[in-house]
Amino acid sequence: MVNQGEDVCWQSSKSDSSGASNSGESSKESSRCSTPVLDADRKDRLRDKMRRRIEAGDHWFSLEFFPPRTSSGAVNLISRFDRMGSGGPLFIDITWHPAGDPGSDKETSSMMIASTAVNYCGLESVLHLTCCQQTKEKITAHLSKAKRLGLKNIMALRGDPVGEDWEDEDGGFNYATDLVKHIRCEFDDYFDICVAGYPTGHPEAESYEDDLRHLKEKVEAGADFIITQLFFRAETFLKFVRDCRAIGITCPILPGIFPIQGYQSLRQLVKLSKLEVPEEIKQVIEPIKENDAAIRNYGIQQAVEMCKELLTSGDVPGLHFYTLNREVATMEVLRQLGLWVEDPRRPLPWAISAHPKRKVEDVRPIFWASRPKSYIYRTQDWDDFPNGRWGNSASPAFGELNDYYLFYLTSKCSKEALLQMWGEELTSEQSVFEVFTNYITAQPNSNGHKVMCLPWNDDPLAPETNLLKDQLEKVNRRGVLTINSQPNINGKPSSDPVVGWGPPGGYVFQKAYLEFFTSSENVTALLTVLKKYEPRVNYHIVNVQGKNRTNAHEMQPNAVTWGIFPGREIVQPTVVDPVSFMYWKDEAFALWIEQWAKLYEEESPSRMIIQYIHDNYFLVNLVDNDFPLDNCLWQVIEDMFEVLDAPPETLDQGNE
Amino acid sequence: MVNQGEDVCWQSSKSDSSGASNSGESSKESSRCSTPVLDADRKDRLRDKMRRRIEAGDHWFSLEFFPPRTSSGAVNLISRFDRMGSGGPLFIDITWHPAGDPGSDKETSSMMIASTAVNYCGLESVLHLTCCQQTKEKITAHLSKAKRLGLKNIMALRGDPVGEDWEDEDGGFNYATDLVKHIRCEFDDYFDICVAGYPTGHPEAESYEDDLRHLKEKVEAGADFIITQLFFRAETFLKFVRDCRAIGITCPILPGIFPIQGYQSLRQLVKLSKLEVPEEIKQVIEPIKENDAAIRNYGIQQAVEMCKELLTSGDVPGLHFYTLNREVATMEVLRQLGLWVEDPRRPLPWAISAHPKRKVEDVRPIFWASRPKSYIYRTQDWDDFPNGRWGNSASPAFGELNDYYLFYLTSKCSKEALLQMWGEELTSEQSVFEVFTNYITAQPNSNGHKVMCLPWNDDPLAPETNLLKDQLEKVNRRGVLTINSQPNINGKPSSDPVVGWGPPGGYVFQKAYLEFFTSSENVTALLTVLKKYEPRVNYHIVNVQGKNRTNAHEMQPNAVTWGIFPGREIVQPTVVDPVSFMYWKDEAFALWIEQWAKLYEEESPSRMIIQYIHDNYFLVNLVDNDFPLDNCLWQVIEDMFEVLDAPPETLDQGNE
Repeated sequence: MVNQGEDVCWQSSKSDSSGASNSGESSKESSRCSTPVLDADRKDRLRDKMRRRIEAGDHWFSLEFFPPRTSSGAVNLISRFDRMGSGGPLFIDITWHPAGDPGSDKETSSMMIASTAVNYCGLESVLHLTCCQQTKEKITAHLSKAKRLGLKNIMALRGDPVGEDWEDEDGGFNYATDLVKHIRCEFDDYFDICVAGYPTGHPEAESYEDDLRHLKEKVEAGADFIITQLFFRAETFLKFVRDCRAIGITCPILPGIFPIQGYQSLRQLVKLSKLEVPEEIKQVIEPIKENDAAIRNYGIQQAVEMCKELLTSGDVPGLHFYTLNREVATMEVLRQLGLWVEDPRRPLPWAISAHPKRKVEDVRPIFWASRPKSYIYRTQDWDDFPNGRWGNSASPAFGELNDYYLFYLTSKCSKEALLQMWGEELTSEQSVFEVFTNYITAQPNSNGHKVMCLPWNDDPLAPETNLLKDQLEKVNRRGVLTINSQPNINGKPSSDPVVGWGPPGGYVFQKAYLEFFTSSENVTALLTVLKKYEPRVNYHIVNVQGKNRTNAHEMQPNAVTWGIFPGREIVQPTVVDPVSFMYWKDEAFALWIEQWAKLYEEESPSRMIIQYIHDNYFLVNLVDNDFPLDNCLWQVIEDMFEVLDAPPETLDQGNE
Repeated sequence: MVNQGEDVCWQSSKSDSSGASNSGESSKESSRCSTPVLDADRKDRLRDKMRRRIEAGDHWFSLEFFPPRTSSGAVNLISRFDRMGSGGPLFIDITWHPAGDPGSDKETSSMMIASTAVNYCGLESVLHLTCCQQTKEKITAHLSKAKRLGLKNIMALRGDPVGEDWEDEDGGFNYATDLVKHIRCEFDDYFDICVAGYPTGHPEAESYEDDLRHLKEKVEAGADFIITQLFFRAETFLKFVRDCRAIGITCPILPGIFPIQGYQSLRQLVKLSKLEVPEEIKQVIEPIKENDAAIRNYGIQQAVEMCKELLTSGDVPGLHFYTLNREVATMEVLRQLGLWVEDPRRPLPWAISAHPKRKVEDVRPIFWASRPKSYIYRTQDWDDFPNGRWGNSASPAFGELNDYYLFYLTSKCSKEALLQMWGEELTSEQSVFEVFTNYITAQPNSNGHKVMCLPWNDDPLAPETNLLKDQLEKVNRRGVLTINSQPNINGKPSSDPVVGWGPPGGYVFQKAYLEFFTSSENVTALLTVLKKYEPRVNYHIVNVQGKNRTNAHEMQPNAVTWGIFPGREIVQPTVVDPVSFMYWKDEAFALWIEQWAKLYEEESPSRMIIQYIHDNYFLVNLVDNDFPLDNCLWQVIEDMFEVLDAPPETLDQGNE
């Protein structure tokens, strides 16, 4: 008989196994159409993630940023989020500056920056919120807006009163505790709440002990974790933690780390926070105060040593960094600590948004592959997101292009840089072909500038696309202007560094995909050729007016990327969807004008060339359904060139 | 420029392509979670199927049956539906006998037989309904019930009045026309309606012309098509069609074909229908009236000739057969006409139910693979069916086993046959192992009887399972009592005659699966072995009390069959779902007792052996996730045997 007591740990019987739930899947949420997402982490809230990391003894880091002053600063900060996000912070937080209209819809507001981090960069984010001299209504409105935008975490602060004659108000927000209580009262358990701790006591507190009691009140009012003010000695923090534990504060306490990055910024910060810089630090930096590099190196070394001491103490689950919106010092500290881990594994082929509404999302159209932020923006008003399959998206209701300011109009590059890459002056369509070719080859153009981006591709060619480089170069040279492509993949391990994604032990697959603009002459030849490739190749061909030609079902999406994993249902994260292609085509054509043509004077020949392409070219996508065979799409293009090169009498040239 | 007018037929622009619908997908039904099913046919109603077949010039046939008298007759008829369904009838119809309680819940009623054909056999079905001497309330109740059961088609008949003194009632149902009107009035366009036509006029009609006018009234009242009474000469029918067309009847008219199958049945039918048998037929059959085989052969030949004449006329889109619940003659006629086509292509690996509610269903748990009718029965109350993925089925609410009469308790075989196959007397568990082994090998047992079925498998081994035959034999011999299995498949063409399914041009995949009962000693050894196969092999092991052991996520289904098709999303029709496995286990264990133990006297040794197995064995399922590699599940069992065969000191025997 089976020894059930000893070597076999039996699970509970049916009634339990069908009702119980151990990974945050509440039965309220269950429905036949939703399925647990691949990565359990995606469903956890911040405090659960912390708990799991603490249980696993897995140290983390987090990063603090302040909102930018200008809209170009916002674009830069978002790029920084992407770069610093790649190192794996558990969360980032965005400070709140009451003077700067922090809750507004301005692209530089705290609210919008935090929303961007969550929605577009996929970062777990904490929004600061200060309460002094604010009405309850105003605070509730801020919180409601934050919730609406997908923010799940608030750092509840009192903030610094403005003016001299500030006094406690009855029923007002006099302390952060009042704000914590208000959040819990109005929003129940929706938000995870962080509060501030002062390792040397709040400067305005009557005493260190009194300040600790205040901290305990904040936690008891409903805070989930504590981040401390900066400090200069590990022991300062570790004593603080012991004192907190002694009076019964049990939640995670994260040390605020400030790598010294310059003499002036240190002085300013110390003044603001009313902290004392220890003598041993002063003695080191005073002599080198004019040498920025030396100070920064010292700051890195000092932070690394202090962090090591903190982490080895066993009382520090994670480190919180005051970045001052800079990358270098913090990244270097993290690298030296071994906490900066650029994990090439991807849960899905595209970056997942951190918005709670999108947590089940696991299918997207391939068209926005190089413009994921644009896709998120245009689908932000969806009530539910495709999960498992794209489905019958008769009215996907993509957001319109008109109020589409941040990611649509703004390139990361300056106008000058764009003109250097894409040409100060275009002389013919051929000039445009050369720009595309130079982008593919990553070779300098005739003026010595590398083409690092195109209107449809903010970044240089993806490693995966590199697999297709030779063919791409060849066809772009002849005016098949590729903007998106993927090779076919017939069951590579999910751990493959280039094309892999999803949990280990799985297999990933792709159908070859190619998307390009090309002239109507080419399209005529292509359509002749495509008849030979029925039903192997599916195509959609459309011009800016929306005239389209396809051999695909008008409503049926074609899965072009999918994965098979141990113990899971099939995941098919990328589809070619005929309906959303019509929305993408509007965006793809508009980018010719908005990002390229408008670099040139109205009526200028350069502008007219781009306008001609916009008005007359077609956007084509091709899928090779026979993924186990060699990709035939290059042969399709070859065949098209052959038809074009054939003697005129055999070619149906059309009416031009 | 593209010559848009001539060689290129451009589709409409965005607004149209996203709103229009060309294959019965109304936008009302659209939702992000549903997707067009693989086979457009599944969504069509009967009249649309007819229209498409007529447009394609694709002749069809249909089959008429009457309800059985006994419950064993019902079991036989359902098997006949399965066999005759494999030849591809466009629909079947079930007659209505007012004297036989036709609308009741009895398993022999017209209503229940039609419901079974639709729901369990996946056959498009037409239910006859007669109206004379019925109240409107009664008729409406019948129709509502039919609708509830998933029936979509009604043959509206007057029926034969009972008794002599029947007269027209005011406001009552005096003619089939009244019934047609009533159906359209009460149920709008829900039902497709068929009415009867009389090629030689209704026996009670004043004249042939008068009868044609009545028929036109029936059609104008809302009938969709006509099936005629039987006749003996093609010209009789063809003239009738011409006469119908002449007075403006435009709907399809299907000839009722009656292959003469015996002298007595012909006489009876002719008497009932008041038809005249033509002299030329009488002259042939009178001399051979004692020779059944000769008459049947003549009947087949006569029907084939008449059908050929009908089909070549161009006026006959399909043939309707009065089968008299017999198979041979009708199938032979259809074979000779080339209309009987056993299409090995399957839209999905399992047979699809014809219930309109289930039309989007495309995922099922693998456990009921050999008991699909049981699965349909136990899920008949579901409001929606899994589509695309199985999803988070926290409460799949499978129907209970208790009122589970038709498919659960009744084997197709008699008690005597079962005893011959499974043993008049069992002497040990080893006797049971032999029964399983004989089923696998299809060799006669020691008494010379082949084991054609097991409680878990109504039919002999599937061709696909045959691929595993050698290994299955080996393991069953040693008490690994397999009840379900599939080999791994790494991308075979969807047209593969053994494992293929779905539309052409696709690729199908499977993970290897093995399900068996085995002793608790074996399970102990197995669990030791399975540690070596982490995470490659997922397992669930459970006994009758529900104690279970698994290394799989407790809520996450594992897709074990899937297909990739041109221009489609991924289809994953079979999953191993941990939650439904607990429901299946109740059924799987109960079959030991209900179908096997109860063959023997209470307290008999044979019965106690089965009872012991039921009480002490475990049900095990194993999935090999590494589908591109060689199936490792046989090695898992080998390793288990090796542990069991090891010298006792190295074996953890447990507490026995």
